[in-house]
Amino acid sequence: MIGMGTEKTIAFVLYPGCTILDLVGPLQVLSTLAAMRPEFRVIVVAERLEPYETDTPLQVRAGHTFADVPSPDVVVVPGGGAPTLRAMTDETLLAYLRGGARLTTSVCTGSLILGAAGLLDGRRATTHWSMLDALPEFGATPVRERWVADGPVLTAAGVSAGIDMALHLTEELGGIDLARAVQFAIEYDPEPPHGKLNWTEAPRPLYLAVVGQWLRDGLGDHPLAERLATRLQNAG
Amino acid sequence: MIGMGTEKTIAFVLYPGCTILDLVGPLQVLSTLAAMRPEFRVIVVAERLEPYETDTPLQVRAGHTFADVPSPDVVVVPGGGAPTLRAMTDETLLAYLRGGARLTTSVCTGSLILGAAGLLDGRRATTHWSMLDALPEFGATPVRERWVADGPVLTAAGVSAGIDMALHLTEELGGIDLARAVQFAIEYDPEPPHGKLNWTEAPRPLYLAVVGQWLRDGLGDHPLAERLATRLQNAG
Repeated sequence: MIGMGTEKTIAFVLYPGCTILDLVGPLQVLSTLAAMRPEFRVIVVAERLEPYETDTPLQVRAGHTFADVPSPDVVVVPGGGAPTLRAMTDETLLAYLRGGARLTTSVCTGSLILGAAGLLDGRRATTHWSMLDALPEFGATPVRERWVADGPVLTAAGVSAGIDMALHLTEELGGIDLARAVQFAIEYDPEPPHGKLNWTEAPRPLYLAVVGQWLRDGLGDHPLAERLATRLQNAG
Repeated sequence: MIGMGTEKTIAFVLYPGCTILDLVGPLQVLSTLAAMRPEFRVIVVAERLEPYETDTPLQVRAGHTFADVPSPDVVVVPGGGAPTLRAMTDETLLAYLRGGARLTTSVCTGSLILGAAGLLDGRRATTHWSMLDALPEFGATPVRERWVADGPVLTAAGVSAGIDMALHLTEELGGIDLARAVQFAIEYDPEPPHGKLNWTEAPRPLYLAVVGQWLRDGLGDHPLAERLATRLQNAG
């Protein structure tokens, strides 16, 4: 069994259909940390060890089941569209997240899964910009930042924000020199071709429709679907 | 057979042991493009349809073999450490890259595979900062930029630079409005915890040793190993 020794185990959680960059951004950062500091062990866990679809044509496979690694020190939960909303009702996954990791982290809409597991109650948290107003459903205070640390919970904004969050976590786990070494290793010196996002141009009405479809596809007639849709519409 | 119609096929090339963020950064960007504009089809290709190891604990699997998709319009080649140098002598992979795509792109040390395939001769190109001085071995002029476009070849700098390169490519393929829509979708508004890299602090002597080990592990006694090592040492 893993995670019982003095090494710290960081477990990345896979579920079918997740957004793959949500997972791989922090996975690359923290695997680079683990290559430099062997007291950290990075693993990928899932309910089953079979190839899972992602939101891209890449299929992925975990190396361990939830049962193999019941008590990791750190858990990372990726987000996505309809499959992530579906995962909010996956009791096996939720039970795993309630297992008491010292730190539970999420990227993008992965924070909604944390919310469904009851981990965000009374916490400050973030998620993909289009879903931020859904967080109070879980007792959370939404915060518009790249990542938000609140006690045993660390949540990141949408998709690519997982890289920033993981570099912050690397510094928390191993210090600033190590975080800088990882940043050089992955040459993280970002230059978006047209600079940062101009938030006055965010396509909010489009996303209200897109997220509404995700809620219907992922949650069907589960009462959460309507409650979350109402929160987003009232805020939008 | 795919890629014979009016749709444009963008093929991501997998090989064992590649750096997974090199692949997934552009894959997320261009899959988001394809979700918005169905005339683009994104696929993942490899020699075999079996799970491959990556440089992290995540295993990945392609959806198509090279033989399934002999003539994609755009090819994306990820980089990595020793496995990427090994891939420079993989004649099946090199033959696939010589297949005449309209645009061949790489991330990180993936450009060395393009070089081994003869695609960089007389071209301006880039790669991971630690390997830049190896590029003249392939007749290329090394350029220290986030991405470098030269005719049918588009190369990106290390690992995370693939995201910037893919947003540039999205604009080339679909225009600036589409590139901005993709940037909002993946919330690419980067905030490295301590800002951009300070290149005066780059750990160059450390990487000279690390890359030397990759060359020995990946290329063994192949003459390229010593030629590349000599170029890096003379420049370092």
